[in-house]
Amino acid sequence: MNYRTEHDTMGEVQVPADQFWGAQTERSRNNFKIGPEASMPHEIIEAFAILKKAAVFANADLGVLPSVKRDMIAKVCEEILQGKLNGQFPLVIWQTGSGTQSNMNMNEVISNKAHVNNGGKLGEKSEIHPNDDVNKSQSSNDTFPTAMHIAAYKKVVEHTIPAVEKLRDTLHEKSRKFQNIVKIGRTHLMDATPLTLGQEFSGYVAQLNFSVKAIKNTLPHLSELALGGTAVGTGLNTPKGYDMKVAEYIAKFTGLPFVTAQNKFEALAAHDAIVETHGALKQLAVSLYKIAQDIRLLASGPRSGIGEIFIPENEPGSSIMPGKVNPTQNEALTMVCAQVLGNDTTISFAGTQGNYELNVFKPVMAYNFLQSAQLLGDACISFNDHCAIGIEANEPRIKELVDQSLMLVTALNTHIGYENAAKIAKTAHKNGTTLKEEAVKLGLLTAEQFDEWVKPEDMV
Amino acid sequence: MNYRTEHDTMGEVQVPADQFWGAQTERSRNNFKIGPEASMPHEIIEAFAILKKAAVFANADLGVLPSVKRDMIAKVCEEILQGKLNGQFPLVIWQTGSGTQSNMNMNEVISNKAHVNNGGKLGEKSEIHPNDDVNKSQSSNDTFPTAMHIAAYKKVVEHTIPAVEKLRDTLHEKSRKFQNIVKIGRTHLMDATPLTLGQEFSGYVAQLNFSVKAIKNTLPHLSELALGGTAVGTGLNTPKGYDMKVAEYIAKFTGLPFVTAQNKFEALAAHDAIVETHGALKQLAVSLYKIAQDIRLLASGPRSGIGEIFIPENEPGSSIMPGKVNPTQNEALTMVCAQVLGNDTTISFAGTQGNYELNVFKPVMAYNFLQSAQLLGDACISFNDHCAIGIEANEPRIKELVDQSLMLVTALNTHIGYENAAKIAKTAHKNGTTLKEEAVKLGLLTAEQFDEWVKPEDMV
Amino acid sequence: MNYRTEHDTMGEVQVPADQFWGAQTERSRNNFKIGPEASMPHEIIEAFAILKKAAVFANADLGVLPSVKRDMIAKVCEEILQGKLNGQFPLVIWQTGSGTQSNMNMNEVISNKAHVNNGGKLGEKSEIHPNDDVNKSQSSNDTFPTAMHIAAYKKVVEHTIPAVEKLRDTLHEKSRKFQNIVKIGRTHLMDATPLTLGQEFSGYVAQLNFSVKAIKNTLPHLSELALGGTAVGTGLNTPKGYDMKVAEYIAKFTGLPFVTAQNKFEALAAHDAIVETHGALKQLAVSLYKIAQDIRLLASGPRSGIGEIFIPENEPGSSIMPGKVNPTQNEALTMVCAQVLGNDTTISFAGTQGNYELNVFKPVMAYNFLQSAQLLGDACISFNDHCAIGIEANEPRIKELVDQSLMLVTALNTHIGYENAAKIAKTAHKNGTTLKEEAVKLGLLTAEQFDEWVKPEDMV
Amino acid sequence: MNYRTEHDTMGEVQVPADQFWGAQTERSRNNFKIGPEASMPHEIIEAFAILKKAAVFANADLGVLPSVKRDMIAKVCEEILQGKLNGQFPLVIWQTGSGTQSNMNMNEVISNKAHVNNGGKLGEKSEIHPNDDVNKSQSSNDTFPTAMHIAAYKKVVEHTIPAVEKLRDTLHEKSRKFQNIVKIGRTHLMDATPLTLGQEFSGYVAQLNFSVKAIKNTLPHLSELALGGTAVGTGLNTPKGYDMKVAEYIAKFTGLPFVTAQNKFEALAAHDAIVETHGALKQLAVSLYKIAQDIRLLASGPRSGIGEIFIPENEPGSSIMPGKVNPTQNEALTMVCAQVLGNDTTISFAGTQGNYELNVFKPVMAYNFLQSAQLLGDACISFNDHCAIGIEANEPRIKELVDQSLMLVTALNTHIGYENAAKIAKTAHKNGTTLKEEAVKLGLLTAEQFDEWVKPEDMV
Repeated sequence: MNYRTEHDTMGEVQVPADQFWGAQTERSRNNFKIGPEASMPHEIIEAFAILKKAAVFANADLGVLPSVKRDMIAKVCEEILQGKLNGQFPLVIWQTGSGTQSNMNMNEVISNKAHVNNGGKLGEKSEIHPNDDVNKSQSSNDTFPTAMHIAAYKKVVEHTIPAVEKLRDTLHEKSRKFQNIVKIGRTHLMDATPLTLGQEFSGYVAQLNFSVKAIKNTLPHLSELALGGTAVGTGLNTPKGYDMKVAEYIAKFTGLPFVTAQNKFEALAAHDAIVETHGALKQLAVSLYKIAQDIRLLASGPRSGIGEIFIPENEPGSSIMPGKVNPTQNEALTMVCAQVLGNDTTISFAGTQGNYELNVFKPVMAYNFLQSAQLLGDACISFNDHCAIGIEANEPRIKELVDQSLMLVTALNTHIGYENAAKIAKTAHKNGTTLKEEAVKLGLLTAEQFDEWVKPEDMV
Repeated sequence: MNYRTEHDTMGEVQVPADQFWGAQTERSRNNFKIGPEASMPHEIIEAFAILKKAAVFANADLGVLPSVKRDMIAKVCEEILQGKLNGQFPLVIWQTGSGTQSNMNMNEVISNKAHVNNGGKLGEKSEIHPNDDVNKSQSSNDTFPTAMHIAAYKKVVEHTIPAVEKLRDTLHEKSRKFQNIVKIGRTHLMDATPLTLGQEFSGYVAQLNFSVKAIKNTLPHLSELALGGTAVGTGLNTPKGYDMKVAEYIAKFTGLPFVTAQNKFEALAAHDAIVETHGALKQLAVSLYKIAQDIRLLASGPRSGIGEIFIPENEPGSSIMPGKVNPTQNEALTMVCAQVLGNDTTISFAGTQGNYELNVFKPVMAYNFLQSAQLLGDACISFNDHCAIGIEANEPRIKELVDQSLMLVTALNTHIGYENAAKIAKTAHKNGTTLKEEAVKLGLLTAEQFDEWVKPEDMV
Repeated sequence: MNYRTEHDTMGEVQVPADQFWGAQTERSRNNFKIGPEASMPHEIIEAFAILKKAAVFANADLGVLPSVKRDMIAKVCEEILQGKLNGQFPLVIWQTGSGTQSNMNMNEVISNKAHVNNGGKLGEKSEIHPNDDVNKSQSSNDTFPTAMHIAAYKKVVEHTIPAVEKLRDTLHEKSRKFQNIVKIGRTHLMDATPLTLGQEFSGYVAQLNFSVKAIKNTLPHLSELALGGTAVGTGLNTPKGYDMKVAEYIAKFTGLPFVTAQNKFEALAAHDAIVETHGALKQLAVSLYKIAQDIRLLASGPRSGIGEIFIPENEPGSSIMPGKVNPTQNEALTMVCAQVLGNDTTISFAGTQGNYELNVFKPVMAYNFLQSAQLLGDACISFNDHCAIGIEANEPRIKELVDQSLMLVTALNTHIGYENAAKIAKTAHKNGTTLKEEAVKLGLLTAEQFDEWVKPEDMV
Repeated sequence: MNYRTEHDTMGEVQVPADQFWGAQTERSRNNFKIGPEASMPHEIIEAFAILKKAAVFANADLGVLPSVKRDMIAKVCEEILQGKLNGQFPLVIWQTGSGTQSNMNMNEVISNKAHVNNGGKLGEKSEIHPNDDVNKSQSSNDTFPTAMHIAAYKKVVEHTIPAVEKLRDTLHEKSRKFQNIVKIGRTHLMDATPLTLGQEFSGYVAQLNFSVKAIKNTLPHLSELALGGTAVGTGLNTPKGYDMKVAEYIAKFTGLPFVTAQNKFEALAAHDAIVETHGALKQLAVSLYKIAQDIRLLASGPRSGIGEIFIPENEPGSSIMPGKVNPTQNEALTMVCAQVLGNDTTISFAGTQGNYELNVFKPVMAYNFLQSAQLLGDACISFNDHCAIGIEANEPRIKELVDQSLMLVTALNTHIGYENAAKIAKTAHKNGTTLKEEAVKLGLLTAEQFDEWVKPEDMV
């Protein structure tokens, strides 16, 4: 491989000749061979491109950057957003905890690409200095958390929430469709009083509605941007009004309601906004787990399980058992939920470990957050399209189970009291008979009374 | 010990003769010797007393319970709330996951005590049936989650939040008091540009404000009560309008904005409201950890640490090292935070494990939630009273550190560029000299320029 | 309440007149009103009594403590172990993270009680100095972790492991008893090829055997005692040979193979031994969860679940549904497992947070460890006695399910190939018919071949 | 893109014409668009290649597979291991929880590639049937856990442990080098009695030794292979002696001590071995966190921190603060530790969720395990090479701090008692003077006695 010589304040570094990145990126590549290369989420790279563009606009407006430099830099930001510089961001999550090296990766690529765009050659000194121009009025300490918030907010509102709402709508439709199908309820996994299948599904809809609301509740915190705080939150080396203006540009470029953080010290030293929103994603995972688990239990069988619903048969289920079909979408979804629970542990831990003016667990927090938000969204869509949408009730099976249930006896409580009702249920259970048979035999009510009082359809 | 014979639908049970509880409570006592007796939080017992009272009022209003029974039951509920029946609720957390046995414990004690209040003797059949009267229009499946919500909501708004706000106010006062004390900033634990001690503390205030807001965001979900759903959420065996009315009574008795749950199926089968609010408590723990950790680092020393602030000296710190004083309140608070993080794992796990119409991890969720809310509140007050309130700045030390800092060089970026500034800092670091000395020696600026441009008080 | 004046190096403190504790204990009581009083586990108190006794014996042997003082102190240690001083250890978990205050509580009580035993009066200066005599050759920093190890080791080997083995033996007995009962297997919750009920239970036995082995693997680390390291691990102020001797005395007094830690710096600054053994307890919780979950699924019904086994009916299961019986022991056990998973999060977090020469999360680690070890032991015994021991097979139900299973078709793979076998299974599933019927109809084999090749009892 | 038609038991599927995979792989690709494509770890693919090869050798030895088929299949397995078929395994983690689709991906690729190797064309029926030949004597249910164990074991013994030992050796070397450098100890972050820097580092060495031992303790469980259990653990459709033989081949091919699982039911239905070994990896993360945190605290500064050691300066540390250098390797390592803690939550959760004969969280467990083992190993090497190896003591600073320490007073306990010693320390602290000065002034000892008794070098 050919190399060219780049330098930074520590000296010279050999950089692959045809890459736009510079000395500091290369140092990081060499010093952090941890995990797969380029594990920094592309959403962070894109968010950086947005914020760098916003910064040069704000800087130019406030008179600290010439408009020609603004335009040169903004052009490269656009190229990054268009994916034209993919491959230029090779760094990993497991680098410095402030993400400084990814910020410098961005600064260096923009500096060098702007020079090439301007007709220059790689390796020559660029008109655009990575620190003094691209990074003007910025520090890694405020850009990286800003990129985290932009990336996290966008992912949640553009991917996760719509995906959950899609699944919620499908389940709501199922709930309406199943509203008159009376089935046996189950508590403690044991037979209980009846409800309709639609009611059962309405609980899932309610869970997802609450989860979406919980996520939305956290967004105002996430909409606050650290940018303008620079090194320690004081805003050193920024022109007056910069923090407001740069947030406005970011809001404009993204179409999302970003604002400058009220307290920049909090915004650098703590990442409680990430903890907060991920806490709501974890709640969503808890909800989805319950739903997916219920649906696979209800669909279990085909002959030795519960079998009250059918789910789509998507793939051969076994490499050895011919004809087997499994609730694979439920499995993918529940595995995603397990992942999100673990990610929450990581994020919470990382959140506690800020010291003084900076939390240096930024990349790992970003990585886990974005993974959760992506996987939850993807899995909701997949589960919706390949499972939920195709759920059908197995009405004969449902009817068979509800008809033989002993817990219908509960309807008699208000007529003959809990203890007499228990006597009927226990005797029928012991003898393997019906409630009606035993109720009459015990002389506690007549057959006519039984038929009048014990109607599953009235119990729901 | 003397015993009397009680019975339930399974038969006879010997119960300690002088206790008000009955057969089912005794069965549970005997069958669940797990952990210390009476580990069910007293807040749950009190919440049960409130809801039982609300239920009889609603039942009486709706004509399904005679007012004489209402008054007999309500009277015992009052006695419980006044602490007159402490000791009558011996059951543990580690019982049935629906909390049925604690619901029956309540029903039995009310039934028997009402009878005694009425002039009867323990062991005689009570005028008040534990199931048919005390439990009328109820199931364990809706009472226990209702008790959880009442207890959790009350604890959070009456204890946790006020305690956090108390600490927040103290830190805010310190932030104002310290607003002009310029100190060295630290990022990555390394010297950085200056800020004021007041700014540093303002970050803590912001964190606590966000935490309180996050907790409050979750309260509407927690204010929804399952009561009226009975066994599986359908409201079987309740009179029309009961769910609304009973929630109104609970709101009235507690002075808190409780409402009936919009979807009773969700309210029984999932406990996402508990997951949601505890998620916010976990966020609070994350915030508090950062704050307590910072304060003990800043106070470390007295001679070989950071030593920028003084915290109160409350106890001899060592059994072997004479004269040692330690940041003990910070240690208690951070241990509480560690506990809350673990409790969140338990609660999230438990939240995923509902099946069909019921989540049977109710007691463990209640226990962990209430422990977190109590400990966080207690620890905030303790930390406030015995530490935060007494924090003082060590101004000579602060000045000494800021004066010798190399990161003041950052102020020169906009004058001489990042790379020249770096040269100055690195040379001074290498030679153990001052920035000014090296700046002038390197010919990058004059002594006068240095004095004009590098003013810590202008950098904050 | 009457008070007497006690003092420590910080000055005077008013102490309840009739209590043996002194100034430092009282300071801690007043300064840490966090959670319920006396939350420090009694196992820690007892372990302290053992180690204090061992320390005075070692000190006397090595000539740094007169034998008369040794005997006075040892006598009080015995009284503590006999429970005669219960109530004298009022401190909470949420105190200083080194547990210094509980160490001083012990030192003060021993000092004062020894004086009273000697005919003196409370409030007079004792012949036995809490620091110079009781704490001789010790520091909180080595005594508290020693107490943690003693208490943890004892609890695990005397309570947890025997309880698990008891349950393991019961399940092994069931496995043998059920060894010839052929039943349908289930994978993905879906019908699969058959196995025997005994084989299914043998998996549970294997899990518990592995868990016990995993716990035992961790014990050597836990057997290492910090005592002799004193303040920072150097053993300052201890006579030569003391660390070995005191460990020998502890081993002698407990009958357990305790040894002195090879590296005292690790033993004070890190509590990886606690992390390690609790990691194994967490594995046990994972195993138990699977087992308890399976058993309640297998026992679900009675009419609308799986119903392949019967478990004991211990309590009325519902306050509203008459005759309902629930798998309550499984619920208690799975709640305990959820708790242990959370406790592991707390312990791991706390384990990371040692700084320099000391980890100051000792009490919270001890508390969570002992809770897990106690609850797991208790719950295993309870589950064993009230559930596992009474498990019976529902043979008619098992036979019914296995006979109608479609997955018996797997036996045909080696005769007619996977694809033909799949065709048979799918057709039978679609038509609601039997495998044999469709196999013959499809012309893939004869009825005689089917009967010869498809024998559930040969498939296990 | 061109497609060819493939089929499975569910019908026809269009597959990219130039890919070796078949119908079931393509179904999974289409049905599980969750997360990035090809997220199944390559270690799992390689482990599958090993086990498939072992299976055909065992099958051939036992007479159920012709040697010509054995050789055709084994050849493709070799090609996979040589990386010649990279890109043929496009499936994701978030598929069916048994990993069936990845097993079939392997079966299909081997089948089709063998046919092409034999001169055939893609799309023609292969001589090697994916189920009847490649998967002979196997099920996904025993192959996937076998692949997990092979991949996990190899990664841990070939990567993680050697990396930890490398770091351990470096720290041990530092410990020896620093053995005579007396420094101030710190407990509770506060000044304590002295120790040597070498002793401090010896604690880190001990931690890593314990971690390695803990990991090794778990390996016997991980060495047990499920292969031979087939669908539910009974070994249906395997020839006699197959399980032993196939494990022998795997041991031979890997050079690692794999054996057949004693209980195949446990090996399919539970993944406690993964839980167990990952528990030890988590312990390692706990240890590494403490070490990395200590080292960055000790290196903090350069002027306003602790500054007792120097660590290598690897990269410019700030995009805004010129000349700043940060402990970046420590940050990468501690972020990895945070990740591993979260992965442990995921793995433990997943471990609890086996049902009946199968745990269907296999891929997520494999993914998290391998990530942890890889990252821990990588980070240890990186931390070793770029940080630990270059640690130097800052002896002047160390001496300055120890000389002014107040905790040297502890050495006086045995001469003048704890209370007098405390008086000296407190007075010196209050007056900002030296211990010696105050000791003499208080008349508690002479200057000569002080010099004789208080020697830091004798206190370590």
